[in-house]
Amino acid sequence: MSNTFGDLVKITSFGESHQPYIGVVIDDFPAGFPIDFDQVQKNLDLRKPGQNSTSTSRKESDQYQVISGIFEGKTDGSPIVAICPNQNTISKDYQPELIRPSHADLTAKTKYQNSNDYRGGGQFSGRLTANLVFAGSICFQYLQSIHSGLKISSQVISIGSETNPENFESIILDAKNSGDSVGGVIETRIQNFPIGYGSPLFNSVESIFSHLLFSIPAVKGIEFGDGFNLAQSLGSEVNDQLQYNSKKEVEYLSNHNGGILGGITTGQDIIFRVAIKPTPTISKPQKTINLATKQNLEHSFLGRHDPSIVLRARVVLETTSAIALINLSQ
Amino acid sequence: MSNTFGDLVKITSFGESHQPYIGVVIDDFPAGFPIDFDQVQKNLDLRKPGQNSTSTSRKESDQYQVISGIFEGKTDGSPIVAICPNQNTISKDYQPELIRPSHADLTAKTKYQNSNDYRGGGQFSGRLTANLVFAGSICFQYLQSIHSGLKISSQVISIGSETNPENFESIILDAKNSGDSVGGVIETRIQNFPIGYGSPLFNSVESIFSHLLFSIPAVKGIEFGDGFNLAQSLGSEVNDQLQYNSKKEVEYLSNHNGGILGGITTGQDIIFRVAIKPTPTISKPQKTINLATKQNLEHSFLGRHDPSIVLRARVVLETTSAIALINLSQ
Amino acid sequence: MSNTFGDLVKITSFGESHQPYIGVVIDDFPAGFPIDFDQVQKNLDLRKPGQNSTSTSRKESDQYQVISGIFEGKTDGSPIVAICPNQNTISKDYQPELIRPSHADLTAKTKYQNSNDYRGGGQFSGRLTANLVFAGSICFQYLQSIHSGLKISSQVISIGSETNPENFESIILDAKNSGDSVGGVIETRIQNFPIGYGSPLFNSVESIFSHLLFSIPAVKGIEFGDGFNLAQSLGSEVNDQLQYNSKKEVEYLSNHNGGILGGITTGQDIIFRVAIKPTPTISKPQKTINLATKQNLEHSFLGRHDPSIVLRARVVLETTSAIALINLSQ
Amino acid sequence: MSNTFGDLVKITSFGESHQPYIGVVIDDFPAGFPIDFDQVQKNLDLRKPGQNSTSTSRKESDQYQVISGIFEGKTDGSPIVAICPNQNTISKDYQPELIRPSHADLTAKTKYQNSNDYRGGGQFSGRLTANLVFAGSICFQYLQSIHSGLKISSQVISIGSETNPENFESIILDAKNSGDSVGGVIETRIQNFPIGYGSPLFNSVESIFSHLLFSIPAVKGIEFGDGFNLAQSLGSEVNDQLQYNSKKEVEYLSNHNGGILGGITTGQDIIFRVAIKPTPTISKPQKTINLATKQNLEHSFLGRHDPSIVLRARVVLETTSAIALINLSQ
Repeated sequence: MSNTFGDLVKITSFGESHQPYIGVVIDDFPAGFPIDFDQVQKNLDLRKPGQNSTSTSRKESDQYQVISGIFEGKTDGSPIVAICPNQNTISKDYQPELIRPSHADLTAKTKYQNSNDYRGGGQFSGRLTANLVFAGSICFQYLQSIHSGLKISSQVISIGSETNPENFESIILDAKNSGDSVGGVIETRIQNFPIGYGSPLFNSVESIFSHLLFSIPAVKGIEFGDGFNLAQSLGSEVNDQLQYNSKKEVEYLSNHNGGILGGITTGQDIIFRVAIKPTPTISKPQKTINLATKQNLEHSFLGRHDPSIVLRARVVLETTSAIALINLSQ
Repeated sequence: MSNTFGDLVKITSFGESHQPYIGVVIDDFPAGFPIDFDQVQKNLDLRKPGQNSTSTSRKESDQYQVISGIFEGKTDGSPIVAICPNQNTISKDYQPELIRPSHADLTAKTKYQNSNDYRGGGQFSGRLTANLVFAGSICFQYLQSIHSGLKISSQVISIGSETNPENFESIILDAKNSGDSVGGVIETRIQNFPIGYGSPLFNSVESIFSHLLFSIPAVKGIEFGDGFNLAQSLGSEVNDQLQYNSKKEVEYLSNHNGGILGGITTGQDIIFRVAIKPTPTISKPQKTINLATKQNLEHSFLGRHDPSIVLRARVVLETTSAIALINLSQ
Repeated sequence: MSNTFGDLVKITSFGESHQPYIGVVIDDFPAGFPIDFDQVQKNLDLRKPGQNSTSTSRKESDQYQVISGIFEGKTDGSPIVAICPNQNTISKDYQPELIRPSHADLTAKTKYQNSNDYRGGGQFSGRLTANLVFAGSICFQYLQSIHSGLKISSQVISIGSETNPENFESIILDAKNSGDSVGGVIETRIQNFPIGYGSPLFNSVESIFSHLLFSIPAVKGIEFGDGFNLAQSLGSEVNDQLQYNSKKEVEYLSNHNGGILGGITTGQDIIFRVAIKPTPTISKPQKTINLATKQNLEHSFLGRHDPSIVLRARVVLETTSAIALINLSQ
Repeated sequence: MSNTFGDLVKITSFGESHQPYIGVVIDDFPAGFPIDFDQVQKNLDLRKPGQNSTSTSRKESDQYQVISGIFEGKTDGSPIVAICPNQNTISKDYQPELIRPSHADLTAKTKYQNSNDYRGGGQFSGRLTANLVFAGSICFQYLQSIHSGLKISSQVISIGSETNPENFESIILDAKNSGDSVGGVIETRIQNFPIGYGSPLFNSVESIFSHLLFSIPAVKGIEFGDGFNLAQSLGSEVNDQLQYNSKKEVEYLSNHNGGILGGITTGQDIIFRVAIKPTPTISKPQKTINLATKQNLEHSFLGRHDPSIVLRARVVLETTSAIALINLSQ
């Protein structure tokens, strides 16, 4: 189903950048659970643009209103539904006949037979990730209540070819100043999630996570544990050997598999890295086409665009991971 | 659902390495389509082990019997079901109390409360990929009948750290001779698949493919187009610019996005690479535990195991890709 | 999934009687289709209470706001989402400790561990059927555009034991005046829907329709064609014999099977009848329990309740039928 | 999905009357549960034809072979798969150009574009109900292990217009002797299933049961509790009033709603009745068409057909009910 994810807790995301609202439905969530909406808002704030010099000056308020499913501060067993108004939308920015390179402009027009709402990217807008943050934050709170010590954290591994975090801001500002954009790699780590979740075959932990994380615009690669480095190794180098420790508990001597064996969690940290491509909208002139005039041209796509979404993407990955976790079968 | 995949054509895979049969159900497949089972068998033969010095000496026959769904040589609208007997299974090889490093032994025992059929890896066995080859071959034949010129091909990019194909066999034999195993990277390319398939968000082409491909044991990473290299690049370097050619057809000047924009096919080649980890079973001594005696030990896991499954995995990736393609919404 | 229905066009219904909004998400609906929202509103008006002496004096406005999915008057390929504010909600009417006989009060409290929003029946409220009317009206418009002459109509067959339509109003008013309520039977007929839709087994036309129609509160029975009368008959009496007419077209001599054979439409009228139970809330004194005091009592449940919902249910059945039809596989 | 049912335990049924095997996949069933296959066989024997004078002389062996999912006598967490060979199939009986009235012959040909396996009804054959009995028997055993005292029983309420059980056999033999068939009504009762299972809206108990039970060929109506009689009643007559008994336990004074309120179980007996139409194949001459010659004719459909399947259908309803129960969300 295009806009619903999950076998256990179902997340239905909807909305388009320049329609009245975006929003999300969370179905089959346990009843009687108190939600800390301040904490949800903190995550939404971490995602939202316009916070510092490295992101777009476009402001998004990201104030969700819960319109159903919460009663006396707790989930009531009915679908949790929240909507968030789209504001600060400058529709005149958009010229649908100009195809933005590496955007969904042409694929969307074809798929939807020219009926798609192209303004601001429509349903392809990165703004929709706010829905994932909202839903994922709620899922995380619940998971944390049943898995003591659960922690999900992300760190930027690289921005462009730079791996020194102290240099990340300058790399992004360089891109911004030259009318360009830059990609990056984020590593996410989930701690204190127990052994035995996930399944072989179609519901492997890797399948569930990758399915969901590739729903985030700009993600173009994912690897678990040592990932592509595993492919360069010998078994003897990367097999996760194990032993009983002095308390006769099982402990692994390494975690090259990222906490997943046979599609099932091992109880070690779940670790994955995603590749985030550079924001496609740049003001540097690019070759493209005008569908109306059927002409080739070079165009500078101006507007308030992020030179890099990598920093803001961390919280999206963390919260979306919680949606994946809550849907792993025990 | 653990063992069923697909919104349009549903593939249910079942079986375990040492049970009587493995098999597959293909549901909601178009009626009236003639299947070329010789071609299916050719793909199964490409997958099966024991074919040359680089793979295990274990023979698998992989002769499927169709037990329903084909009438007078054509699909009849009922689920297509085929089963394949497990033969040449030497059950005495297995000592379930010895945990094989980097295998699903411990995760499976925990998840299934010691009830899992551990023989030969049970449902975690790579043998189950024969089901994907069987089903995927049928899906491919149908897709080829409606998409003229459709082609799916795979090539090995690297074995271990070696990228020269002429050296791949010796790398694998070196690993074999030293009781070790080695991983690799495979690139798959889909040609002549039209624009407009897939969806934004949860049914993105990347989501569908990655979900399915991470169901293949040993796959630990996937990247589309330039993937992780995109993350190291500037937008101006990797945006896929476009133009009208002399026939006023749209053509892209590059394909850094691997034929997918906004989760939807662009009509260019769909390109992805997967990382395959080294086969975990090696005869080199490894540290592990004996669950029965609760003791630590070093153990050499003997038996007829592949030093590398990378070569055999090509056809699995190609045919599984057809299962993904047939489930992309138009 | 509790609140999403459909394999082809997915309807997610949400909301509770006394929360800010109810609403509905329509996903995977064809793009580029113009919706006539005036026609949708006419159906909503037919459903809403407070229109005449036979229904509750409680007014519901049922004014939906489309918040996503419509662009320039047409569906745009993104989920169609509409919300409807709950107004005129008199929360003080409700005493959750008093269990209303034949309502979901006790089952809901148990299932949701006392966390459910009991006000006005919460998510069990008949008000939620407005979501079905909204979504079904849109589905119907689309179906009508592809199936020329498609018509869905309902008629009340009986109110209580009365089968003469001229007497229905007086039966309902009698029930109202005596603080009671009364049930009824509605027959729905779908004309000009083609042969070949539906499936054997789990997606039979009867399965899809009954699944959906039993989602309507108060429906307690359904029969297709002659239904329970078929069970009293001989095969020779009720088999639908057939012949070529003078134009060599196939025509049936009867329609005892209600336009469905083998779970698949025959091209004849699809006919079914549903049994609607009397509204459970009545002012006549009833024996019940007080959960707080743990005491037995007799109680008159006052309030603005329908003495019968049968007349208003017609449009719900008609529009909900369109949701079923649009989800039949061809 | 056409041939898979269930959100919690998934049943995939496959097979056709004259193909090598029918069979069933049971996925996501709890691991470590011992199955009593003798008990499963007893249920299969109750379903199979040819047991006495009131059913067809056609013998079906119904000996399932488990080919995966059972290890050391217990479920092992992998899909449970069983196949059953089709024997005693007399293919020459069938003339596909002759349309059997009230059968799926014409709808199937249309839907599957003349590719369906028409022999013996193909996938529409009542023989497929053996799969439901096999799977349902296993589900029942598991449910009984967790719900102490669970009991599912069925009784025939009527055969044709006869309601006296002592006369049922003679009614059926009368139909048989006159080359006719006869329908009937079966009531199923589920005892000792707890309160709180099922959901409002699309996963109501009635929705799940009716969806599944209308998958059984020949079922054309279903009613829960008093069903259609509720529609003829006043609220004051049929509301299920309640009280605390002397032990301060809640008890209902009646069960007009068949153990379901708001789509959720009440803890009372779950009661429903289904209408089973007369077997369509009769030897009495009937008007029909010959698709090959395009001519009208009267035809006697000879062969070994049941004059009534009602008696044999009891065990199908009981076991299929267990599939429904195991899929109710708690």
